Amino acid sequence: MNHQNSDQITTETKHRSTGRLYGIGVGPGDPELLTLKAFRLLQAAPVVAYPVSDGGKSLSRSIVAGYLRPDQIEVPLWYPFKLEQSSQPYYDEAAEKLAAHLNAGQDVVVLCEGDPFFYGTFMYLYTRLCDRFPTEVVSGVSCVMANAAQLGTPLTYRNDVFMVIPAILPAAVLSQKLAVADAAIILKLGKHFAKVYALLQELGLAERARYIERATMPNQRIIPIHDVDPETVPYFALISIPSQWQP
Amino acid sequence: MNHQNSDQITTETKHRSTGRLYGIGVGPGDPELLTLKAFRLLQAAPVVAYPVSDGGKSLSRSIVAGYLRPDQIEVPLWYPFKLEQSSQPYYDEAAEKLAAHLNAGQDVVVLCEGDPFFYGTFMYLYTRLCDRFPTEVVSGVSCVMANAAQLGTPLTYRNDVFMVIPAILPAAVLSQKLAVADAAIILKLGKHFAKVYALLQELGLAERARYIERATMPNQRIIPIHDVDPETVPYFALISIPSQWQP
Repeated sequence: MNHQNSDQITTETKHRSTGRLYGIGVGPGDPELLTLKAFRLLQAAPVVAYPVSDGGKSLSRSIVAGYLRPDQIEVPLWYPFKLEQSSQPYYDEAAEKLAAHLNAGQDVVVLCEGDPFFYGTFMYLYTRLCDRFPTEVVSGVSCVMANAAQLGTPLTYRNDVFMVIPAILPAAVLSQKLAVADAAIILKLGKHFAKVYALLQELGLAERARYIERATMPNQRIIPIHDVDPETVPYFALISIPSQWQP
Repeated sequence: MNHQNSDQITTETKHRSTGRLYGIGVGPGDPELLTLKAFRLLQAAPVVAYPVSDGGKSLSRSIVAGYLRPDQIEVPLWYPFKLEQSSQPYYDEAAEKLAAHLNAGQDVVVLCEGDPFFYGTFMYLYTRLCDRFPTEVVSGVSCVMANAAQLGTPLTYRNDVFMVIPAILPAAVLSQKLAVADAAIILKLGKHFAKVYALLQELGLAERARYIERATMPNQRIIPIHDVDPETVPYFALISIPSQWQP
């Protein structure tokens, strides 16, 4: 976009000596589902940051592992996901880690599963850093769409109303939301599968629903929903309720 | 995915002499938002098909114009969007055009704006051809996510319920749907802008709403929603109502 107004010229001048912050979507799991832009920025960046889980693993890093160079500085960002009430200091700390690189004039790419602004944790860095450093967000393929390609089920047609619902919500709330949707994705299933499955049976939606784990990842699994073992459902599993419209 | 079961081997054998059909998402407009996979398949395909509008233009072709080779066979597909009740014969005809190439052993890539299975027209070809030819769908970046990166507004957090609503729906229906969403995208605005804007004011959502035309395209426009001229709103305009959650 070409927005040459005076405010932006001032901002550019102010930031000229700092690095640029990029939040890049790395897509749902298949490394080939990175965009050309994300790939270019990733390859060019001196510093690559990514969230790591309590176990020290990083899903977003594993997606792009084949694209990283040995000379890139890697910055793992640890957020204690299980203690949400106290996570703000961890985001503050992560932001300051990145600010140190940006202030030193280094561009920083932050890896984001799926899309950076659609659920996820990049927003916590974005709100802390976007006023201090030139920042760009690169959209990615979301698992919300990628599951449809893997399942072979078109998701929405024409005037359908589409909804994305986190599985953690109580059954009564899920029921109220689903009542107004023509098509829906229920995501972040994990330990909530049994509750969601029972509700879909009650609502007469279980026959239409499709279950998929880790869409496009090497360990993707598609299982008939009635055969799913609720004890083994991972966080990155979702249920698709595709549109009923017949083309 | 490695699914070496006997059914699939049979299918592969049956189709060995035919071409493969690919529905590839080309993303919202910026050619760099193609995925690496879509780019690879597009460059390799002998035949490239795409929908064209009544005026003969093709948005999806314009997105990838810089990637096409002169020796590729181009197959424009014309659907009369304004006569929906009689569009089935046009999809039949389009499918047969592609089937001729596939039967001749040529791979065919069909260009799809955004994601192939999220609104759009690829599904009409998919349902007609996927049982006859080996078919693969490659997910793309949807305008539903891409607008957020351009607007600089994170869309959804944590347990938000997210909704996508076509603007054509009556105001009362839109109102009922919006009531259960934490964040929403109202798309395909066009001539429906005035109705939607009036409703958002009535619901107290207008201050939160953001307006964007043709996100990531060269002629992208972001306009304060109160300044939009309802007479000039294109089909590829949308309103984002981002989550109110404060990170």
